[in-house]
Amino acid sequence: MRIHKLTRAAFATFGDVISQEGANPSLVNRGTAERFHDLANIDVADAHGKPLLSLFRARPCQLPFEVTSMQRHPLGSQAFIPLSRHPYLVVVSPPGGFDESRLIAFFAAPGQGVNYAKGVWHHVLLALDEVSDFIVIDRGGAGSNLEEVNLQRPVTISAEDLRSLAFDIN
Amino acid sequence: MRIHKLTRAAFATFGDVISQEGANPSLVNRGTAERFHDLANIDVADAHGKPLLSLFRARPCQLPFEVTSMQRHPLGSQAFIPLSRHPYLVVVSPPGGFDESRLIAFFAAPGQGVNYAKGVWHHVLLALDEVSDFIVIDRGGAGSNLEEVNLQRPVTISAEDLRSLAFDIN
Repeated sequence: MRIHKLTRAAFATFGDVISQEGANPSLVNRGTAERFHDLANIDVADAHGKPLLSLFRARPCQLPFEVTSMQRHPLGSQAFIPLSRHPYLVVVSPPGGFDESRLIAFFAAPGQGVNYAKGVWHHVLLALDEVSDFIVIDRGGAGSNLEEVNLQRPVTISAEDLRSLAFDIN
Repeated sequence: MRIHKLTRAAFATFGDVISQEGANPSLVNRGTAERFHDLANIDVADAHGKPLLSLFRARPCQLPFEVTSMQRHPLGSQAFIPLSRHPYLVVVSPPGGFDESRLIAFFAAPGQGVNYAKGVWHHVLLALDEVSDFIVIDRGGAGSNLEEVNLQRPVTISAEDLRSLAFDIN
């Protein structure tokens, strides 16, 4: 499947791109630090929910990789912020009834995090290259916060798809 | 001032140490990732508060450094998770009325984040060595969430203090 460059505009339907790029910092701490403020809509604090901070350590996927299932969290957003300088893949589909014809893949470059908005269908982490650590901020608390679907027609992400993206960008 | 090694036990009065070390992961994402679950008490979601996710880019402090003031956030916790592999210093004092005789300094090693519990006195970021990026999770929303105090007797952190810590650890 085609892989797209991850930009705020391209990802707006699905949530936030978490990055200093394009954000305007303010000076804090008596001028010793820049604060890039409020970069994601962390939407987890309903009456029964609270923010959870966790760390994920993901094994890289092997290409070609077959996308066979997707998931979503109906009760809260979920943010992934890479602690490693490795890229990863993001596969999403719009919220609402799942439509596998609307799957879209993005290439998250080093330094880019993502925050899936509540209810957005997404694949689980697809690290590339190396074992990669991520900070994860999602919702804890009562309620059923995971739905999964299997694709009728699995979709393949190939090394060639990645090379084509590199060609598109450069 | 003496600098202490940052451990969960030593920091328990002040909040959480955010680290994989000593945490028990569970396997998630069909066994492709380990989840180190709920590593900090993100305490920001009162009736008027919401979690804010921001990035800080901090200039390193120069040693010797004089600690002249401290601050606290009475309405919420504040977490700092380094995105860079550089150490930093954490200077805190217990919650409640400020007592400058109870200041304590910790050395946060690469990979260690901290979460200041609500109301814990702390110094602003003290990056070491290099310009360092941090993810920050704190509270947004109505209410006055910053108090600052100046020390009657400023305290100095010297390069020698850091060397002494290294000697203690090794």
